[in-house]
Amino acid sequence: MPSPKTQPARGMRDFLPADVRKREYVIGVIKSVYERYGFEPLETPAVENIETLMGKYGEEGNQLIFKILKRGEHEKTGEADLALRYDLTVPLARVVAQYQNELPKFFKRYQIQPVWRADRPARGRFREFYQCDVDVLGSNSALVEAELISAASDALVALGFKDFTIRLNHRQVLTGILDQAGVPRDRHDDALISLDKMDKAGPEGVARELNQRGIVDESAVKLMRFFEGLAGAEHAANLIDFNDSSDGRAAYNADVQGRLVEFVGPHETGAKGVDELRQMLQFAKSGGAAQRIKLDPTLARGLAYYTGAISRLTWRISRAASAAVDVTITWLACFSVRTCRRAASRWALNESSL
Amino acid sequence: MPSPKTQPARGMRDFLPADVRKREYVIGVIKSVYERYGFEPLETPAVENIETLMGKYGEEGNQLIFKILKRGEHEKTGEADLALRYDLTVPLARVVAQYQNELPKFFKRYQIQPVWRADRPARGRFREFYQCDVDVLGSNSALVEAELISAASDALVALGFKDFTIRLNHRQVLTGILDQAGVPRDRHDDALISLDKMDKAGPEGVARELNQRGIVDESAVKLMRFFEGLAGAEHAANLIDFNDSSDGRAAYNADVQGRLVEFVGPHETGAKGVDELRQMLQFAKSGGAAQRIKLDPTLARGLAYYTGAISRLTWRISRAASAAVDVTITWLACFSVRTCRRAASRWALNESSL
Repeated sequence: MPSPKTQPARGMRDFLPADVRKREYVIGVIKSVYERYGFEPLETPAVENIETLMGKYGEEGNQLIFKILKRGEHEKTGEADLALRYDLTVPLARVVAQYQNELPKFFKRYQIQPVWRADRPARGRFREFYQCDVDVLGSNSALVEAELISAASDALVALGFKDFTIRLNHRQVLTGILDQAGVPRDRHDDALISLDKMDKAGPEGVARELNQRGIVDESAVKLMRFFEGLAGAEHAANLIDFNDSSDGRAAYNADVQGRLVEFVGPHETGAKGVDELRQMLQFAKSGGAAQRIKLDPTLARGLAYYTGAISRLTWRISRAASAAVDVTITWLACFSVRTCRRAASRWALNESSL
Repeated sequence: MPSPKTQPARGMRDFLPADVRKREYVIGVIKSVYERYGFEPLETPAVENIETLMGKYGEEGNQLIFKILKRGEHEKTGEADLALRYDLTVPLARVVAQYQNELPKFFKRYQIQPVWRADRPARGRFREFYQCDVDVLGSNSALVEAELISAASDALVALGFKDFTIRLNHRQVLTGILDQAGVPRDRHDDALISLDKMDKAGPEGVARELNQRGIVDESAVKLMRFFEGLAGAEHAANLIDFNDSSDGRAAYNADVQGRLVEFVGPHETGAKGVDELRQMLQFAKSGGAAQRIKLDPTLARGLAYYTGAISRLTWRISRAASAAVDVTITWLACFSVRTCRRAASRWALNESSL
């Protein structure tokens, strides 16, 4: 009889043959798209030296790292010297430093491997799950960003997904907006955490949170006026452009760009960010992803390592078109570009069945 | 500059693109052969509850298990509640118990996943390496054994290996031999550990070790007379049959069977084992592996869980025929059958470059 003793560890899953085949199908499709874009495979060990991981993911991340006890007589000390991979980004940084003489200066790699997080396993979230990262090192061109978005978009289309949106923003644009609104630099993080909740809490919720976080003066008013204007434009676009036609989307993105240029004005960093977004939209036109991109200046993402473009791919479907993926799936993909060094598209296959 | 800080953890390896492609090629070939034989894929989490693993691999194995610290406030206790997978066999046993209502009664599965062992990393040995297991559950037919041997042999041939030998023995035959020689049951383990060294230490070395282990009386003499006879037969076969022709191999196996029947005599368990070996050789004739099988009554293997057939696939080549595997490789494959319940072929991809 099945018993608690024969269950997999909490938050982990066994994959019986039908499940393995589904996951292999999905990973195979993603791989073949990545390969078509010229990304090369990389694999790193599941286990890293603990110093490699600690302190890289913030205080919350540190708590979620699975730590491995020293072996032999040192076991009694209760100390850990190794840890399980928490993401594929920190191992990539280590690999790039270690093999800089062997790797090309311009290096496009994909890595599809499991990661482990000691999260409280909620519905549809697991302690062992696959990430499918794409990163480009050695270029800070907006072309590289556009390529990452195209690759992820193509992979989703190849998997039978149709109805998804790539929300796109830029950390430098956010800096420009906050500076121009008059939010002091040391309150930027607070402001970003609040803004990032726009799609869930709405403008009123965000205004309330800004208040609670002590951003109360004229800067909050300016900020909210800008974002309420954007929300109005989005509402109008949704009313008119209910078919999400690519023309309608392009018009909306042009409107947002106009508002950003106006608000950011002569702010150097902000203007540079807006220009990068413009270039990305431009380059994306040659691929199939352009019509799926939606500029979203509220998109902030928590992690401090986002210094360039930020994008987030969101969709929720109850049944995919592809017969091989015929289950309820919620996927999340997020992209980032680090300062001049790398562009990354990271997918977390953190769904309920794959 | 590369520094100790950017190296992978001790005994672990990074796989740069060319290495990933080589390993993927090898695993792809093995998988396609296993699939052709009707084995189905299974995957289990890297992490198991610690009770699932502890006590399953003997005292030495326990020492080599990577243990994971409890999280949160329990971390201070220095206690471990999880551990990294040590092999694919114990997780299989757990899966079979857990999903007995979902899995077919006769279940053929393969599992190709990494395992972790806190071994002292010696040359060509690693702390993270892949195992490629094939197991059959729900049958104790010798046909199943023959099929496992064929599948492993076919996979090697598909990878371009030609010069390899599948040494085959049966635990029950060993029991028969030791009983008939008069070795007391409580000394069987000692005797097996000594016998297993025949190919390295030769008959004289084994005789010496039997002596050291206190197996000194007539039983040691009887035992050594039998194995010296076998060694003589092998030597003769090697002299005559230097091309390893399948006829020569068949004649040698027939000779060994004759000697076993004679020595084991009316010993019930032993005779049953000899008959199973005969059946396996018979069934293997329909596949391509028959000419590679060599009966080897000295083959004992340490692990107590071998209760049926034991085989070991050994070869050492400096250059494989396949262009994709053009590196020095030492592989080891071992098979086992557990009492009436399962047959297993396990490969450890523990070589220097894949």
